[in-house]
Amino acid sequence: MTVENPTIADLGENEALKRTVSRLNSSDFAIIGSGDDAAVIATNADRFVVTTDTMVEGHDFRLDWSTAFDLGWKAVATNIADVAAMGARPTALVVALAVPGCTEISWLEAFADGLREACQTLAPGVGVVGGDLAAADQVFIAVTAHGSLEGREPVLRSGAKPGDTVAVAGTLGRAACGLALLQSGEATAISAYDDWVNVQRRPQPPVKAGIEASIAGATSMLDISDGLAKDAHRIARASEVTIAIDRAQLAGFEAMLEEPAMRIAASAIEWVLTGGEDHSLLATFPAGAEIPRAFKPIGVVTERGSAAVLLSGEPLTERGWDSFVG
Amino acid sequence: MTVENPTIADLGENEALKRTVSRLNSSDFAIIGSGDDAAVIATNADRFVVTTDTMVEGHDFRLDWSTAFDLGWKAVATNIADVAAMGARPTALVVALAVPGCTEISWLEAFADGLREACQTLAPGVGVVGGDLAAADQVFIAVTAHGSLEGREPVLRSGAKPGDTVAVAGTLGRAACGLALLQSGEATAISAYDDWVNVQRRPQPPVKAGIEASIAGATSMLDISDGLAKDAHRIARASEVTIAIDRAQLAGFEAMLEEPAMRIAASAIEWVLTGGEDHSLLATFPAGAEIPRAFKPIGVVTERGSAAVLLSGEPLTERGWDSFVG
Repeated sequence: MTVENPTIADLGENEALKRTVSRLNSSDFAIIGSGDDAAVIATNADRFVVTTDTMVEGHDFRLDWSTAFDLGWKAVATNIADVAAMGARPTALVVALAVPGCTEISWLEAFADGLREACQTLAPGVGVVGGDLAAADQVFIAVTAHGSLEGREPVLRSGAKPGDTVAVAGTLGRAACGLALLQSGEATAISAYDDWVNVQRRPQPPVKAGIEASIAGATSMLDISDGLAKDAHRIARASEVTIAIDRAQLAGFEAMLEEPAMRIAASAIEWVLTGGEDHSLLATFPAGAEIPRAFKPIGVVTERGSAAVLLSGEPLTERGWDSFVG
Repeated sequence: MTVENPTIADLGENEALKRTVSRLNSSDFAIIGSGDDAAVIATNADRFVVTTDTMVEGHDFRLDWSTAFDLGWKAVATNIADVAAMGARPTALVVALAVPGCTEISWLEAFADGLREACQTLAPGVGVVGGDLAAADQVFIAVTAHGSLEGREPVLRSGAKPGDTVAVAGTLGRAACGLALLQSGEATAISAYDDWVNVQRRPQPPVKAGIEASIAGATSMLDISDGLAKDAHRIARASEVTIAIDRAQLAGFEAMLEEPAMRIAASAIEWVLTGGEDHSLLATFPAGAEIPRAFKPIGVVTERGSAAVLLSGEPLTERGWDSFVG
């Protein structure tokens, strides 16, 4: 089907972004520009990492499911996960917030509390260094996070090599499980599995593990924000390799989700493969590397075959979250 | 009047921000944190400047008054003006954009064109290094801009000293005039004064002048984003001085606006004093400094008197743009 003036919904987020970014000029100061988890910018004598992410009411969150504290926490967590995925130490955030004029100050204060607590818990030393507050009809949150590479090279998506071990730090599928529970509307299930719901509301990305992976020589890494299936494709594509995941190695992640999955007639393995909002890290390590304990091996990198990503030998389709298609 | 759960509209933007920021923890890496035009962040061996600004449909712009190109341009201009106001050279931007799914791709492309053209025209070498595209019910644009101090100290709001000369680089009141013309709905007036309307749509902040001011030894500087009256108060307050503006020195700015002001029965001097969106620079220079040619002297800094800002000897009230109050 050809559309004369296609909308973003017609094309999907990736294509819309690609068409948009292709029209931009590059920065003279960009060592790594757009296309990875974060950009690396030269200063006179050193460089810093920067990344930005947006959350919109009614699209990325609901005010009846997330408190202002949750949203502040999540805005920090999602962004520092991208910094960590470069192997960098988060240093500073700026926060752009737009809210209706009728928003209560106590809501703003709780939002700020969430920002602060997430900074102090997830990445001690990081803080909000600026921001903007604007009026809007719905709540918008855009955070830009910065990080320091501390003299190391950034860990990109493009460095995976055949023979590398594929590994995950953090949980898989829990945030998706939590979202499904919220969507089910089943109050007793929501309260019975509140640990899962809380991963959706206040994700805990393994920030330290990102730095450890860099020090251990990780060849590629990213923040699993759109699901293992989709994000493994991103590494496979950027590195021109095949990522071969062993389903047996996912059993531990799956087991944690089976009870709530049965409760609401959902699929635990689907959550593991396509749930992104745990903000865990997916990385590859060369043979012989001492893989940090926070990482669990789930597969290997092979020469590029006919499929970019395999699950126990079968092609794994690229599916997961798209802001516009859903 | 005391309100039990005051809203942002109840308190105004400044107070709402103050209450919010007071609850945040600071960054270990912030040399200059929130409260100025931009924040300064240490990296291992050097530092960079970062600032963020937001534009929301229906609040900060109307899609029938501004094209997508205009909005891309303006998003860049408003942010690099803040970088320039620190005396820094803009280096890189990240852009968070949220739009309805029904937005046409051509709109996004034109937006990107506006980003690119503004970068190349206003600050050659700067570019977009990352971003995020999200779904929303209204258009929301948040840009974070970064800059390099090139070894210089940042020019803050707090350094003005009695005896300094107060000077402006760029125009005053033109964007406000352009907005008033658009609001008047008078098509012939809008087309007769399209140069003024275009300052509203595509401001041209004097970026180079910011760097020149820093080199010339400016003691304080900011981007006039909320109007001369309001922004002069910001320097006066941060520096604990009085800014004494000579109205005669504003005559040149006023003269440029008198024709369109008469046409729609408005006040040219009000636009000069309260119109902010030209994104010009207000700076102070010590006696003996060679003031860059881009700057026009408009007054002097004196010891703090009873009023923070004087206009030809009379107290000038602090008025101008507030995102929530209007």
